[in-house]
Amino acid sequence: MSALLLYFEEEQAPALRLADACGLPAACVERHRFPDAEMRLKLPVNADGQLPGRVVIYRSLDKPNDKLVELLLVSQEARKLGAQKILLVAPYLAYMRQDIAFQPGEIVSQKIIGRFLSELVDGLITVDPHLHRISKLEEAFPGSYAISLSGAPMLAELIAKERPGAMLMGPDGESAQWIASAAAVCGFDHGVCSKVRHGDHDVRITLPAGVSVRGRQVVLLDDMASSGRTLVEASKLLKAAGACSVDVAVTHALFAADALDVIRAAGIEHVWSTDSVTHASNAVALASKLTPAVQAWLRQGR
Amino acid sequence: MSALLLYFEEEQAPALRLADACGLPAACVERHRFPDAEMRLKLPVNADGQLPGRVVIYRSLDKPNDKLVELLLVSQEARKLGAQKILLVAPYLAYMRQDIAFQPGEIVSQKIIGRFLSELVDGLITVDPHLHRISKLEEAFPGSYAISLSGAPMLAELIAKERPGAMLMGPDGESAQWIASAAAVCGFDHGVCSKVRHGDHDVRITLPAGVSVRGRQVVLLDDMASSGRTLVEASKLLKAAGACSVDVAVTHALFAADALDVIRAAGIEHVWSTDSVTHASNAVALASKLTPAVQAWLRQGR
Repeated sequence: MSALLLYFEEEQAPALRLADACGLPAACVERHRFPDAEMRLKLPVNADGQLPGRVVIYRSLDKPNDKLVELLLVSQEARKLGAQKILLVAPYLAYMRQDIAFQPGEIVSQKIIGRFLSELVDGLITVDPHLHRISKLEEAFPGSYAISLSGAPMLAELIAKERPGAMLMGPDGESAQWIASAAAVCGFDHGVCSKVRHGDHDVRITLPAGVSVRGRQVVLLDDMASSGRTLVEASKLLKAAGACSVDVAVTHALFAADALDVIRAAGIEHVWSTDSVTHASNAVALASKLTPAVQAWLRQGR
Repeated sequence: MSALLLYFEEEQAPALRLADACGLPAACVERHRFPDAEMRLKLPVNADGQLPGRVVIYRSLDKPNDKLVELLLVSQEARKLGAQKILLVAPYLAYMRQDIAFQPGEIVSQKIIGRFLSELVDGLITVDPHLHRISKLEEAFPGSYAISLSGAPMLAELIAKERPGAMLMGPDGESAQWIASAAAVCGFDHGVCSKVRHGDHDVRITLPAGVSVRGRQVVLLDDMASSGRTLVEASKLLKAAGACSVDVAVTHALFAADALDVIRAAGIEHVWSTDSVTHASNAVALASKLTPAVQAWLRQGR
């Protein structure tokens, strides 16, 4: 069965890298935004007005709301136009953090968005989904093909090249999994901080006991950065404890508004990220990581 | 079965007018927007963490994408928390204009969004949905309870008060239905222009043959205004043809960005709209129009 990779203009670079690596033809979904904020989308159909039987949609779901509506429109119309199987490659998967109601009435968006996506497409490949209290992506995405990859090993290789001998530091307990995964690749010294969050822009961090950072080049490693406050707070503590440099490596560069300025102003020299979210800090292309999972999906049921 | 009207903060005024008119308790859905643009929503549950069996969601769907994701989250969680029947009151209904593929591959968003909404809720009440080539709301919203009301009679009453003796003018052929409906209420002289659209901001209009506007107060009446270019173009022609004043009355004040400035600069004196979309031009409250339809839904299957 023939296949096609669909992408949106602003993600052309990472989408074409993936299509090339997979040996897939790729085409752009045309989008027009009306003055009233509605969108008109156009699928790249063949001369018969059809799509091939297998469609791979490349769409990272940062700033997710517009993109979720686009995915609804694209996937449903793609089925009408001949797509029998649809794979979503979403290097960043949105709404995975709200997995429990902390207060009565709080909406558990992870379950609802996961189910919504699982009803639109037949398979999902993502990278470092931020799962707190569930251990498997399949619980959030109840489909037959749900693959979760990690950007940490590729970031570890970059760090080993750029900062040989660095100490890896996780800014909070949840980052322990990425730290362990990265340290396993290149054998870095490592530690994990403790964090208490009081609000979107108010975090308190404690360095790990029994780990000396004096004179060390420290690299803060995490799955994502958004406001940047956690990284800034950790960097201050690390420098006060004698670290000679602090850099940052994250899979998902969500960085909102002024985040990168705040991070640079705090004396953090380098920020490295994967291309899961298009951003000036992108230093690692995920295509080679995603390719085997896409190819395995394409081989399914042929 | 007890019932509750849910609304969002920015629509508190029209939502509470409707709740009052219907004799329904009303409560706000709390919303927090994270720095990465994801939302956390919280439903106003009772002491047992539950919602009543019937829930009315008041949500006008202008600038629709964020709101469609909110509706997905709110309706699905409401079901988990006890809502057995959900009615959506969406005075403005989005994505109704794209009802056919003009070019191969164009996504027919009306059908997809209509079906999406019909799977989330059990009933829909809307006002002047912009249906081109289908005649009934039920075709776009395949549910058991789909009510389409019109704002034109209420706008006609306002015009009769503010501009007695006015001539009603529709800016294009599609507005003929609102013109006929409004003229029937108050017996206005009326006419309908012809329009050819060359782009979002480029429209060409022709005044109706055999209708003299010389010395008349003309009110342009339509279901919606967005960029405002159509109204400006029509106003120029009307004034050139001798109209002594031109005002505007629309159901849906979608007015994007600079639209109202452009309209005012073109010498249009008054812009009147219903409160279907919250806007400075709102002059007519739809609550009394919506109330019987909401009450009829509440009575269903009691």
